[in-house]
Parts: sequence; structure tokens; C-alpha cells
Amino acid sequence: MNLQRLTFVLGGASSGKSAYAESLVFASKRPRVYLATAQAFDAEMTEKIRLHQEMRGAEWTTVEAPIDIATVIDGRTEDEVLLIDCLTLWLTNILLADHDVDVEFEKVAKSLLNCACPVIAVSNEVGQGIVPDNALSRKFRSAQGRLNQLVAAHADVAIGVMAGLPFALKGALPE
Amino acid sequence: MNLQRLTFVLGGASSGKSAYAESLVFASKRPRVYLATAQAFDAEMTEKIRLHQEMRGAEWTTVEAPIDIATVIDGRTEDEVLLIDCLTLWLTNILLADHDVDVEFEKVAKSLLNCACPVIAVSNEVGQGIVPDNALSRKFRSAQGRLNQLVAAHADVAIGVMAGLPFALKGALPE
Amino acid sequence: MNLQRLTFVLGGASSGKSAYAESLVFASKRPRVYLATAQAFDAEMTEKIRLHQEMRGAEWTTVEAPIDIATVIDGRTEDEVLLIDCLTLWLTNILLADHDVDVEFEKVAKSLLNCACPVIAVSNEVGQGIVPDNALSRKFRSAQGRLNQLVAAHADVAIGVMAGLPFALKGALPE
Repeated sequence: MNLQRLTFVLGGASSGKSAYAESLVFASKRPRVYLATAQAFDAEMTEKIRLHQEMRGAEWTTVEAPIDIATVIDGRTEDEVLLIDCLTLWLTNILLADHDVDVEFEKVAKSLLNCACPVIAVSNEVGQGIVPDNALSRKFRSAQGRLNQLVAAHADVAIGVMAGLPFALKGALPE
Repeated sequence: MNLQRLTFVLGGASSGKSAYAESLVFASKRPRVYLATAQAFDAEMTEKIRLHQEMRGAEWTTVEAPIDIATVIDGRTEDEVLLIDCLTLWLTNILLADHDVDVEFEKVAKSLLNCACPVIAVSNEVGQGIVPDNALSRKFRSAQGRLNQLVAAHADVAIGVMAGLPFALKGALPE
Repeated sequence: MNLQRLTFVLGGASSGKSAYAESLVFASKRPRVYLATAQAFDAEMTEKIRLHQEMRGAEWTTVEAPIDIATVIDGRTEDEVLLIDCLTLWLTNILLADHDVDVEFEKVAKSLLNCACPVIAVSNEVGQGIVPDNALSRKFRSAQGRLNQLVAAHADVAIGVMAGLPFALKGALPE
């Protein structure tokens, strides 16, 4: 399978979006780089990270970058394929670290546009529930929506995932 | 209309997914069996169940099974059609009763695969909002996502519903 | 571009649904009427309204109608195009003002069906998260779902939006 320059995979929590994104990587036969944005603050998250690693299997170069993902994207070589899983945890990290989200968004968008290898970026849809009752959640939800729009606008292919099933939002589903 | 062996209907709360699933049953002309998973714990739920019954109309055999839906699925005959509405309430029931969800998921998946008649299973998408602030809700959300992926993987046709409108996630929309 | 009589645009918070709906209005070349349902109760909302006005640009006739949108819809002339943004804020307003939602829904549906000019109505999908823990939110979620189903049933074209990207729910995407 020939991957496009930038593939965006968007789904809800536990929608199977990561497994779908990984299936695209496996089909590409390129050396695999996994950009992990998760930080294990507690036991629940530690277990979630371990389960994802187990599902992914071996044969990955894993790079952990909770904040500075632009440098990891910039450091790729032409023969590789990069999976970023996921932009939602990265957004959480930069908000908790009190970075300026719009500055960070621009930096990452630029890196994605100039990446030497194909990139698959995974993110969460978080805006289809009831308005959250605290201001921080509303700020997060709004920032996540802007980030998703930005990455989708730059993507060659954008794919929604529900119940493990992909549907095309932009371009055609990879075959 | 010829129904496939297993049709999965997935939508948000008040998305019209039940009415859409019922329209598939009506179109099939088969004797209708309704597997009701709802339990009326309070007045709000009692009223919701009453409204759904009213919308559904007569000419249904209703089987109430808040927990053991596998036995109901196993008990069907070839000429019938079975509507399960919905897997989200069933999941709530088995979580509240402290059953092992993965054991239950496997049992139900096996029954769905071997059901004598066509089945339409309705479920909720619950993962597209903000991360819930309590651990039980996160556990529920994760289990619901795994269940939806499992049923969708077994389904011949999977259909998303928004604002009463169906869209194909797997296979083609029934005509 | 020729707009249909009623176009329904449905998406999550910060999904880019307003910008998409505005792009349809811009493409139509008709005199633009903007029906604003937002009420600025606090600084957060004041800022949100200001940002949306800035994005929309000049060359709009703006009519503010937090409650009585039917009269605004009824008052249109054939040459115009009307953008209603959004039905979710309108629903919030009529619930807060303690109006009978079903009476209001019927009134608005009738106006939409008889509007002299093309209408684009924007609304939120709010039912794809976890069940809210308070009764008012559950009531709101249920009413929003019924309203979305009603408007979608009357619409010639219904369009979902995720990450700024439209997908057809009913009819074909405007070109």
C-alpha cells in the first residue's frame, strides 16, 4: 500500500482508531516509528499504555515525546513511516504545561507539512457530548476541535472511525 | 427486504437509532421478537420504556432479558427476526451486577454468530465527548467501545445513525 | 451554487460546522441574513460571539432572535438566503425560558417548510458522550435529539461535519 504524505485518523474513545491506524502502518512495509505522546501519571494510564504496546507488537522504533513532537517529526528519514498516537494526549500535555496552544499548533502543522516520510496522525473527536460543566474542559474541547480542523485541512486523507470501522471524510480510504 | 444475518445499528442518545432499527424489522415481514434490555429503576426510565413501547406498536413478542441475552438469542427460530435494543443498557446491567464483561461479550458474540434468524442489534456511541471525570464512567466507556467493535466485526452490515439518518459503516444500507 | 430549500448542518462543538455553513452561504451569491440565537450571558460567550462575527465578515444582515426564530424565518423574501446558527443555542434559550419545546419545535418546523428563501440550519450533535449525571442535561440531550431528527426529516440535504470536513447524511453535498 502506498501511504499519502499525511493521513488523519479521527475517532472517539475506544473506537478502534489506534488499531486501524496501526493496520495502515503494517500494510506499508516501511520501517515503523511510533511517536508516543502518553505520559503515565497513574496506574490506569500505565496499564493503558502497556495494553497498547502489547497490541502493537514488536518491530517499532518508539520515541516518547509528550510535548515536543515537532522535533520528532522533523527528524524522520524518507524510508520510514511515522505513527503519532495521539494528538489528544499531546494537547492535554501542552495545556497542562501551560504552553500557548496556537503557537504549538502552528509549529506542528509546519512539521507535518514538511515531514520526510508518510505520517499517520491519530486524534479524538471530543465535541459530540453535552457541554462540559467546567471551563477547563470547554477550553480543551474547543482547542481539540481547532487542532482537528487544522490537521484535517493539511491531510491528504482523513478517516473517521466508529466501532472499529473506517469511513472516508477526505480523499479515499486506503485499500 | 432481505435482512442479513447480523445488522448492527450504532448511534448517539436520541439519534433515532431505535426507530431506524424498527423500520428494518417492519420491512422484513417476519414474526418480530423484541429483546428488551431496559430495567425500570425509576420514573424517568419507566416513562422512557413506555414511550418506546408505544412507538413500536403491537405485533411484537417482547422478551425481557436485562442480563442473559445469550439464551434469548439461542432460543430463536428460523422464520423470526430479532431486535436487540439495546446493548448499552445490557452492558450497564452486567456492569452493575458485577459480571465479567469480557466473558459476557464472548458468550453473546458466539450466540449472535449462531442465531437461527436475522438479528438487528442496537448500541450507543458514547466515546465522542470529553473524558468523564469518574473512573466508573471511563470503564463503561471503554467496555462499550470494545463491545461495539466486537459486534461490528461480526456484523454483515453496520449502520451509523445521526438525526434519524442512516449512513453505511460496513456493507450497504438495506433498501 | 443553487441551494436547496432547507439544508441541515450537524456537527460537534468546534467541529467547523459554522464555517462550513457560511461557505455554503458565500457560494450562493444571495443577500445574506444571519439569524443569531446566541445570548451573551457572560464574558466567555461574549468573546465567542465576537469571534464568530469576525470570522463571518461584513455583508450580512444580522437578526438577533434568541427565542422567536419562527417570525424571522417567516419574514424572509425570495431573493435572500438565511443562515440559522444555531438551533442548539435556541433550544437552550427556550428551555431556560421554560417554553414547551414540542410546541416550539412544531412552530419552527412549519416556518422552515414555508420559508420564502433557502435556509441553512446549523445544530449540534450532543448525544455521543457518556450519559450526563444530571436530569436537566439528559432532558436537553433528549430534546436536542428530537429537534435534530425533526429538522433532518424536513431537510432536502443533511450534512454532518467532523474536523471541518462535510459528509452527506441525506441528499448530496452541495458542489
